[in-house]
Amino acid sequence: MEHNIPKGFKFAGVHCGIKRKRKDIGIIYSDSPCNAAGVFTKNVVKAAPLIYDRRILDDNPENIRAIVVNSGIANACTGEKGLKNAIEMAEKTAAEFNLSSNSVLVASTGLIGVQLPMEKVKLGIEMAKNFLMDSPVDFAQSIMTTDTVQKISSVKIDLNDKKINILGIAKGSGMIHPNMATMLSFLLTDAYISPNVLKTLLQLSVSETYNMIDVDGDTSTNDMVIILANGASETSEILPKTEMFEKFLEALNQINTELAKKIVKDGEGATKLIEVRVLNAPTKEDAKKIAKSIVSSNLVKTAIYGEDANWGRIFAAAGYSGASFDPMKIDLYISNTHENIKVAENGKEYPFNEEKAKKILSADHVLLLLDMKQGKALATAWGSDLTEKYIEINGRYRT
Amino acid sequence: MEHNIPKGFKFAGVHCGIKRKRKDIGIIYSDSPCNAAGVFTKNVVKAAPLIYDRRILDDNPENIRAIVVNSGIANACTGEKGLKNAIEMAEKTAAEFNLSSNSVLVASTGLIGVQLPMEKVKLGIEMAKNFLMDSPVDFAQSIMTTDTVQKISSVKIDLNDKKINILGIAKGSGMIHPNMATMLSFLLTDAYISPNVLKTLLQLSVSETYNMIDVDGDTSTNDMVIILANGASETSEILPKTEMFEKFLEALNQINTELAKKIVKDGEGATKLIEVRVLNAPTKEDAKKIAKSIVSSNLVKTAIYGEDANWGRIFAAAGYSGASFDPMKIDLYISNTHENIKVAENGKEYPFNEEKAKKILSADHVLLLLDMKQGKALATAWGSDLTEKYIEINGRYRT
Repeated sequence: MEHNIPKGFKFAGVHCGIKRKRKDIGIIYSDSPCNAAGVFTKNVVKAAPLIYDRRILDDNPENIRAIVVNSGIANACTGEKGLKNAIEMAEKTAAEFNLSSNSVLVASTGLIGVQLPMEKVKLGIEMAKNFLMDSPVDFAQSIMTTDTVQKISSVKIDLNDKKINILGIAKGSGMIHPNMATMLSFLLTDAYISPNVLKTLLQLSVSETYNMIDVDGDTSTNDMVIILANGASETSEILPKTEMFEKFLEALNQINTELAKKIVKDGEGATKLIEVRVLNAPTKEDAKKIAKSIVSSNLVKTAIYGEDANWGRIFAAAGYSGASFDPMKIDLYISNTHENIKVAENGKEYPFNEEKAKKILSADHVLLLLDMKQGKALATAWGSDLTEKYIEINGRYRT
Repeated sequence: MEHNIPKGFKFAGVHCGIKRKRKDIGIIYSDSPCNAAGVFTKNVVKAAPLIYDRRILDDNPENIRAIVVNSGIANACTGEKGLKNAIEMAEKTAAEFNLSSNSVLVASTGLIGVQLPMEKVKLGIEMAKNFLMDSPVDFAQSIMTTDTVQKISSVKIDLNDKKINILGIAKGSGMIHPNMATMLSFLLTDAYISPNVLKTLLQLSVSETYNMIDVDGDTSTNDMVIILANGASETSEILPKTEMFEKFLEALNQINTELAKKIVKDGEGATKLIEVRVLNAPTKEDAKKIAKSIVSSNLVKTAIYGEDANWGRIFAAAGYSGASFDPMKIDLYISNTHENIKVAENGKEYPFNEEKAKKILSADHVLLLLDMKQGKALATAWGSDLTEKYIEINGRYRT
């Protein structure tokens, strides 16, 4: 596949031995200083790299040159030593690439509670230096844990007659593999955007994309989304409340939605992508709560897996979402890309053909659409179904 | 089994044809008026009987004479007609037993979104009248859905040299059987307690028992706990802030804990009871949030099912519970009734024997104990493990 690579970025992904065979150290390198922003897990138990990165982004958000990532070990629940190791990863990367150490960000994903084998990690960073390339594919592979596919998405857009590129590389398929945690996403652009505006853009986009997906309801200790903007496209600065800002946000949302859906589709044991769209809700907040609650419900997930148009579960999950609404107004539709049926009207059953419903649910992308008929707000959430395979992966792995 | 039956209550459980074969109509009848209180689901989508009962308990909490329950159909998402049917169930019961209709409470459990077959229901109520008996066993069976065992618990306690009895009858094994929802619990006592004090006692007890269990994270549209007190023991009134109050609450907690654990043990597909005890937490609220978050985590449930001492998942689930705390202080122990090992200390791994851990986790009742070392509050939660069988039951049932 051809990717739209922002100017001035290079990538590496190598194997240093944290994992048995697969690539486990990745580096993103920028020729020039980047403005940067990050969004981190809300879990109180935060992995060491997150603690480190937040400090760097607070102090030095206009001079980021590299991100170093390892997979296989999460460097979470590792105490002072874990933090020291995260710092050492940054310092080693800085030394190899002749950077100041506060211009390097760090990320980890893998087993919780285990210390990093620092000799291997440092060797990996040295190796990576020799394998920098234009393609992000090796890097995308090096950050995978139980992911079955690499996850890359990109766009090229026109801004004031110049082209800018946005590239996103993500990993995640649930907080899986006993302690194998985490969703990571790295976004790169050659647009010119200040750190504060980057942060606003990132938060706006994350709240509509990565924050609207669910595989298994477990929030990892290592989740992070980082965006770097190096300005290499030489377009003018993107400022808030401008057309450029809206256009960039739209492109960013497109990439993040694509990556979020890829993560959900690759959810462990998943056979289907479930999309829940809530329309005409009283408030945006309510619409989001309802969409997320439905897509996170074990009972909805298992029903969709079983291709059972069990609409009562969808109402029940909406009901315990914490949103306030009148269930007696809601219409519910079930569709795939080919067909659409109404299964409930005004909160009660709407007679439908069970055979047809089953056929719709047999698709690998299923849409549940709630028309709440009590406002104008809308929200979309994405989730995977819940299957025996999930239990197998998560019940039987570590020991 | 011998039960401690409060004086003045009778029971019936019959089959009227809502379900194919098993008992589906039950009645609890009191010879004299009861004081009553109830706790209902927080789900915004509330089944018709709950809407009806709340009205009755607001208007007439000192004159309850009977509870009529059906299983097989939940009477939820059934609109105005559903509410009319719930009222008709109460009226038919009142007519058969010569009561005023506002002295009858109604409960339903089963499929969501389907109307009750009222001719069968009314016939069942007529039949039940002819099968009233002293034993609660038929009644306990008549309220079961996917439950595999009936759930009864009782105690006899001394209050000022007189004996009082408390009996509890519950059903529930997750919100299962496509749309088969619900936890129901009926508590009966011959103690003398005003409706307001009953309500206080019930809320205190529910918050420590039924509100601390999790099978699949799905809150039903039909959950309810009702307590009736008829004063037939002729003991003096139980008033707040007395020794009698404390003694009664302790006995009530004992029954509700036992029933709550029975529900979890009977959780669909469950092979183990997981008990999470949080000690020395900053606040009671934090302790409860953490205990519930751990016991509700799919990843913790699958790890315990797989007998894998995957302690990082326990920390991660505590971390996203919404409680505030310092993870670096926590010690974690894993035990069964025979053995106990420490697996983490001060937020980091504490070297342990994997074989021994696996052996401990092979028990059918496993205890996870978090010593937070940052306060004095404590809480306990109970949950079932998550197995392939759960997926099978919930993915493949309705159609």
